Amino acid sequence: MNATSGRMDMLADGSPAQAHDRYQQVRAATTWLAAPLSAEDCQAQSMPDASPVKWHLAHSTWFFETFMLERYEPEFVPFDTSFRILFNSYYNSVGERHPRPQRGVLTRPSLDQVRAYRAHVDERMRAVIDRMAGRDAAFDNLLALGLNHEQQHQELILMDVKHLLWCNPLRPAYRRAAAPASKAAVDMRWIRVEGGVVDIGHAGQAFGFDNESPRHKVLLRPFELANRPVTQGEFRAFVEDGGYERPEFWLSLGWEAACDNGWKAPLYWEHLDGDWQVFTLGGRVPLVDEAPVCHLSYFEADAFARWSGARLPTEAEWEHAAQSGKPAPLEPNTLETGEFAPLPARAQAADPGTFLQLLGDVWEWTSSSYAPYPGFAPPAGAVGEYNGKFMCNQYVLRGGCFATPASHLRPSYRNFFPPGTQWQFAGVRLARDPAH
Amino acid sequence: MNATSGRMDMLADGSPAQAHDRYQQVRAATTWLAAPLSAEDCQAQSMPDASPVKWHLAHSTWFFETFMLERYEPEFVPFDTSFRILFNSYYNSVGERHPRPQRGVLTRPSLDQVRAYRAHVDERMRAVIDRMAGRDAAFDNLLALGLNHEQQHQELILMDVKHLLWCNPLRPAYRRAAAPASKAAVDMRWIRVEGGVVDIGHAGQAFGFDNESPRHKVLLRPFELANRPVTQGEFRAFVEDGGYERPEFWLSLGWEAACDNGWKAPLYWEHLDGDWQVFTLGGRVPLVDEAPVCHLSYFEADAFARWSGARLPTEAEWEHAAQSGKPAPLEPNTLETGEFAPLPARAQAADPGTFLQLLGDVWEWTSSSYAPYPGFAPPAGAVGEYNGKFMCNQYVLRGGCFATPASHLRPSYRNFFPPGTQWQFAGVRLARDPAH
Amino acid sequence: MNATSGRMDMLADGSPAQAHDRYQQVRAATTWLAAPLSAEDCQAQSMPDASPVKWHLAHSTWFFETFMLERYEPEFVPFDTSFRILFNSYYNSVGERHPRPQRGVLTRPSLDQVRAYRAHVDERMRAVIDRMAGRDAAFDNLLALGLNHEQQHQELILMDVKHLLWCNPLRPAYRRAAAPASKAAVDMRWIRVEGGVVDIGHAGQAFGFDNESPRHKVLLRPFELANRPVTQGEFRAFVEDGGYERPEFWLSLGWEAACDNGWKAPLYWEHLDGDWQVFTLGGRVPLVDEAPVCHLSYFEADAFARWSGARLPTEAEWEHAAQSGKPAPLEPNTLETGEFAPLPARAQAADPGTFLQLLGDVWEWTSSSYAPYPGFAPPAGAVGEYNGKFMCNQYVLRGGCFATPASHLRPSYRNFFPPGTQWQFAGVRLARDPAH
Amino acid sequence: MNATSGRMDMLADGSPAQAHDRYQQVRAATTWLAAPLSAEDCQAQSMPDASPVKWHLAHSTWFFETFMLERYEPEFVPFDTSFRILFNSYYNSVGERHPRPQRGVLTRPSLDQVRAYRAHVDERMRAVIDRMAGRDAAFDNLLALGLNHEQQHQELILMDVKHLLWCNPLRPAYRRAAAPASKAAVDMRWIRVEGGVVDIGHAGQAFGFDNESPRHKVLLRPFELANRPVTQGEFRAFVEDGGYERPEFWLSLGWEAACDNGWKAPLYWEHLDGDWQVFTLGGRVPLVDEAPVCHLSYFEADAFARWSGARLPTEAEWEHAAQSGKPAPLEPNTLETGEFAPLPARAQAADPGTFLQLLGDVWEWTSSSYAPYPGFAPPAGAVGEYNGKFMCNQYVLRGGCFATPASHLRPSYRNFFPPGTQWQFAGVRLARDPAH
Repeated sequence: MNATSGRMDMLADGSPAQAHDRYQQVRAATTWLAAPLSAEDCQAQSMPDASPVKWHLAHSTWFFETFMLERYEPEFVPFDTSFRILFNSYYNSVGERHPRPQRGVLTRPSLDQVRAYRAHVDERMRAVIDRMAGRDAAFDNLLALGLNHEQQHQELILMDVKHLLWCNPLRPAYRRAAAPASKAAVDMRWIRVEGGVVDIGHAGQAFGFDNESPRHKVLLRPFELANRPVTQGEFRAFVEDGGYERPEFWLSLGWEAACDNGWKAPLYWEHLDGDWQVFTLGGRVPLVDEAPVCHLSYFEADAFARWSGARLPTEAEWEHAAQSGKPAPLEPNTLETGEFAPLPARAQAADPGTFLQLLGDVWEWTSSSYAPYPGFAPPAGAVGEYNGKFMCNQYVLRGGCFATPASHLRPSYRNFFPPGTQWQFAGVRLARDPAH
Repeated sequence: MNATSGRMDMLADGSPAQAHDRYQQVRAATTWLAAPLSAEDCQAQSMPDASPVKWHLAHSTWFFETFMLERYEPEFVPFDTSFRILFNSYYNSVGERHPRPQRGVLTRPSLDQVRAYRAHVDERMRAVIDRMAGRDAAFDNLLALGLNHEQQHQELILMDVKHLLWCNPLRPAYRRAAAPASKAAVDMRWIRVEGGVVDIGHAGQAFGFDNESPRHKVLLRPFELANRPVTQGEFRAFVEDGGYERPEFWLSLGWEAACDNGWKAPLYWEHLDGDWQVFTLGGRVPLVDEAPVCHLSYFEADAFARWSGARLPTEAEWEHAAQSGKPAPLEPNTLETGEFAPLPARAQAADPGTFLQLLGDVWEWTSSSYAPYPGFAPPAGAVGEYNGKFMCNQYVLRGGCFATPASHLRPSYRNFFPPGTQWQFAGVRLARDPAH
Repeated sequence: MNATSGRMDMLADGSPAQAHDRYQQVRAATTWLAAPLSAEDCQAQSMPDASPVKWHLAHSTWFFETFMLERYEPEFVPFDTSFRILFNSYYNSVGERHPRPQRGVLTRPSLDQVRAYRAHVDERMRAVIDRMAGRDAAFDNLLALGLNHEQQHQELILMDVKHLLWCNPLRPAYRRAAAPASKAAVDMRWIRVEGGVVDIGHAGQAFGFDNESPRHKVLLRPFELANRPVTQGEFRAFVEDGGYERPEFWLSLGWEAACDNGWKAPLYWEHLDGDWQVFTLGGRVPLVDEAPVCHLSYFEADAFARWSGARLPTEAEWEHAAQSGKPAPLEPNTLETGEFAPLPARAQAADPGTFLQLLGDVWEWTSSSYAPYPGFAPPAGAVGEYNGKFMCNQYVLRGGCFATPASHLRPSYRNFFPPGTQWQFAGVRLARDPAH
Repeated sequence: MNATSGRMDMLADGSPAQAHDRYQQVRAATTWLAAPLSAEDCQAQSMPDASPVKWHLAHSTWFFETFMLERYEPEFVPFDTSFRILFNSYYNSVGERHPRPQRGVLTRPSLDQVRAYRAHVDERMRAVIDRMAGRDAAFDNLLALGLNHEQQHQELILMDVKHLLWCNPLRPAYRRAAAPASKAAVDMRWIRVEGGVVDIGHAGQAFGFDNESPRHKVLLRPFELANRPVTQGEFRAFVEDGGYERPEFWLSLGWEAACDNGWKAPLYWEHLDGDWQVFTLGGRVPLVDEAPVCHLSYFEADAFARWSGARLPTEAEWEHAAQSGKPAPLEPNTLETGEFAPLPARAQAADPGTFLQLLGDVWEWTSSSYAPYPGFAPPAGAVGEYNGKFMCNQYVLRGGCFATPASHLRPSYRNFFPPGTQWQFAGVRLARDPAH
């Protein structure tokens, strides 16, 4: 999803040794995510928006081969010339590509061959890293981009696998997990944030995607932001109040989407034997009232906010709050504890001015259309297609979710999806204008 | 397209006499627009986005009947109960409605019956105006809203008729017009505008739609804006440079739209016998190089800007420039001179710091997604559906076109369309960041 | 719908005077059908399968101009060159044509201009008939074809107008008619028909379409055919027995169509205030139990037959029965008595071996796929496209309906529609194999 | 594809030993077909018409479990209750089913689990066969049906795998095969067949599907049928004569299909470097002029026939010729010799009255719509859904192809597909009416 600027934090001293470590960690994490999956699981594509896991494994490797090996190997020969087309996602400058909705028919190369492709490129990347890392800023930047790119696909793997397994009436689990200990949710509180001219966008030398830059000033009015995301229990009240049958809460396009698709509740919710169940990566579980609601489209988040007498925050409000509002120390949910977890106990006693679960729980929809920051200039060449060309009819999400790699969790990170999509791990935190 | 705030300018003294005049002018203008059209022309619907002229004639009347007569007549009886459903556009609060793409099948009521409906409602409105105008602010506001609403439909009538006639291989004219005298275009110049915290949004007591409010402060960086819109000749150069075959200039969704719909040039352009012809309300005419290019989608405007090494202005930049940048006195094109006119001679000698053709030539796409202004609150009740629920996946246009009623031409007016639509009279004015 | 063979019956002596009479009668009947309709009614197209009445008026005229005037006028000049494209239905050999689903956007030429076109062609046809009729078999055949073609469009006009008016929630009437006097229906009886080698297809010198030829022998097994069509009351029993919810009665494609389109009863039936109403050309009326059920698709007719423990007849069975089975004298329903009429009283006392309502009540679906008869050869040239190229995925209907011109009512006439269409006036007569 | 009548030929003496042999042969053949395929290959579904190989493996097993074990095991417990839904193809009487276009998302159960399911059911079937075979006609018939059903899926596996591999731009082979030795084709000759009242339909005690019955009499006129199918070389001449650009040869629906889908040649043909290549199960090979053309839709077969001045045979003509016309001894192509083979040498010297390649080369389209034979009655219960409900908008093919199990090759066998499908192994043999 986007191109780099700045130096990589994770290569702090820029040494080849550190670059090797980092490369190896990221690549291994992807492999680990695919480990519970069979060759069949890795093959199937559940909808045009999603990709097969095998494709993710190959495409993230293709990225290194195409954008790094081809440039930095003096006698570059591709692993397989056909892969240039098969595993190109959307880079027009790189040439042709296999149509996205048809990725699921590519049974060849096999999963084993794709694993061999990964190993092969890793070996060649090691040689190139040895020679170049820390000696060439462009190289270091591309390496950082490639690794952050692969991390984005790690999250996509979990989104896509979850949707695939959901399409199976057996509702199989990706990994079984211990049920989280249930705890009372923290009360929802409004926290006032003063406005003014504030700085927004990526700062410092650490890695950031091109769409987070340039850092720039924005004028904000005072606003109030909720101390935590909306919970499943709160959203259930909206459902049970007829929220999905009352057009007055919905954007016109949202109402159309709800009618056309027969939405009655969030994706992955099922009403069985009189109770709500939620499908998770750990299988089907009862609704957990205190956990953040997840898998909302923008339309549903917006309708919920209107029903609540509130609104979505803008992305600038969100980022400013996250920078300034005493966020609680990060305690991200992990896959081991299930997909979502009740708010940790420490939070119960938290300072009333503290924002909870800002980073690493669920993505939070903002009301901001995804657009370039003032002065935005994508890098030259193919990597310039990373982000810029998608800045239309999408809305920004902030904060990261349990599936987001920890090093991506930062206030300036901009995720984005069309307003009708539901398969990303997205919830909502309410905002409002202060009563004067 | 939206609900009112503030008092009506056109009813400056608020007297019934003035309200009568204003009402009568606006209603007569609509009738005049339909005059050249046969019953058949008024019946047909050329696409789901467009409506039959007969439907416009009835719906604008329905608006007065439903939102004013029903409230202000003590013994209100509807002209025809079925019209409540047939001519409701999108007001969920008013109840059911006939599906939009099926408006063209409503051959009954006939055009004559719709004219009778107009006359009938006019007569009852006269009585109500007599009794209420100038004595009740809510009444005055609703009247202003109804009239401004009808004026918006006047422009829609011309858009929809043009598209309908275009769908006919005979390419018939709406009204024949004398060919405009051709003149050299003014050279394109960049005008620098300083940034800072500026005020944006509707000001004063005159009528404005709800989406123009509240007036609020925005922080702008310095920018440059072109002195005039892009011309047909300039856009032809883009076409002839392969602009429609080169994905590097296009947003991803725009490229998809161009491929799916086979776009090779703007809507209404035809390449015949080696030359470009343009279909206008006056029939098919040769391209006029010095006239503003029209009927661009957002995608085409954006691709052209990228090809030019420039960008679209934001709506705040545009409005600030229009407020502060010495706009030339209004000299709108009229239907008599054809749809578009070359730049008037007086402009040739104009001050280099003067913005030309800002208002009343062609709508100008901005890069701003259509969103509520900070603190926006739609009015209560059905008229609250006027604007707010459409604030998603649309982009703002500014300036008005030759078909926009003159009283709508103001810097704060926000028009909006989805990025792929082409049938509105929309062009583009370039912006860029200053070289430092 | 098809090309001619044999001489015209209606021009028995072949004299110009008789040809004039016949031409004038047919053309006047078309005009009469359009008389109750406004310009708006004649403009609209309610679905891609239907055409505007104005288009029918023009196309039937185009047929004479293109296939007769162009050939028989020495100095032929077309009325308007653009009409060649605008009003070509499907003749590839004649060149380009306006796309069928877009016929409703042709507001020009106006209805008045189309009427002028009709008058103009009529005048030129008179001159040509004077000169040629009775002197040239090819001419006489083409004239007969043109007139029979126009008669087919007369029935299409009523089908299309009915569908258009139905799409209007006002459910307006085409012509108001006196309610038919209700009478008890004749009991349904099975009539046995012996098989053997029988002759099928058009015989004699009278006009017939090419698809009715050649007459040929078919081997039939003994069968039983109902004495009358299925009634609305009988079909209501199927509906109320859950016929539309039970897949076991339906062809697989039929079940799909029923689910996809939400069929719950025949087209034009509405369940209002606990009772069934039917929309007719005379407006909405209560179901008449003894009248033949109408507007069934092939799928519904077939499902009903299966539910009844019977089947549809083949077209050869039907035609053989109609030739041999003592049909009652024709007493077609007329528009004056409403669209469908209860069985006439005389039938009550009828001979138990008499088939009732075979011709001119409702079209009756047969189980026969529309295919060429053995030895079928379409005529050379464009009129060869009349029938042959449609012989795929359509099913044959026999008998004619109240809207079919009387001179078309003959046992060999083959009508045909795709199995999912409902807007033709089609019912069903049951057949079955004799017990042992 | 259909339900049984008559006893099974392959169980001639009805002994359990023979039934075991037969069961084991058929089941092993299915396994053998899947052997060259990876778990990924068995997972993917290339289009809604096709199914994953894994699904075929499971569904054919489900058939035995549902229709035999459930009936004949006293203490039946299903292998997995969810399989009843997952692997039901289209039997409404059996209950719910997983939607066909979504079969490719069922990554669980895995291929290994499906293999275990096969083994498990095989073991239980062995016990039931031991107990019942030869002692109960209904049991024997169901067993025959189950085995013939599985054989039909063997052919579907090859069709579906071929289409899947074709969707991969790598065009991978299913099994590599030695190139067939090229030989000159036999000259095309017309063979006259006398008409009369002939018997059509399944005869004798051997197994036949329900749609082949009852045997009945048909009246045929004399006709001529080609001695062999149309070759690739002959079809290439049609392509190169502009056959795909000339509507005069096409049925109206066929022309639409050709335009909508951009057909320029048969499926699997590619024009590369100036020459035609054909994709086969053995990979991409050059066109073999003397081999039968394959993968024609009905529309293409019909257009070719018209271009040739001929027509398709009816199914009765085909079957009568196959019964009476001295067919050459069967020498079916095998997978080892590639998908299609030039005509064997022995044929060159053949009697001019001999029909060549009638059985086991390519399916041959007939002009007959798929319809029930007179007196057809599907068996009671769920297996009655096997064939009858598909008798609409499909056309009959005869003869079998190289992929058809040898025991299915008989003159009365009726295959059927919608006229626009291309992925079955279908060619064409010409027929014509004799010149008198």
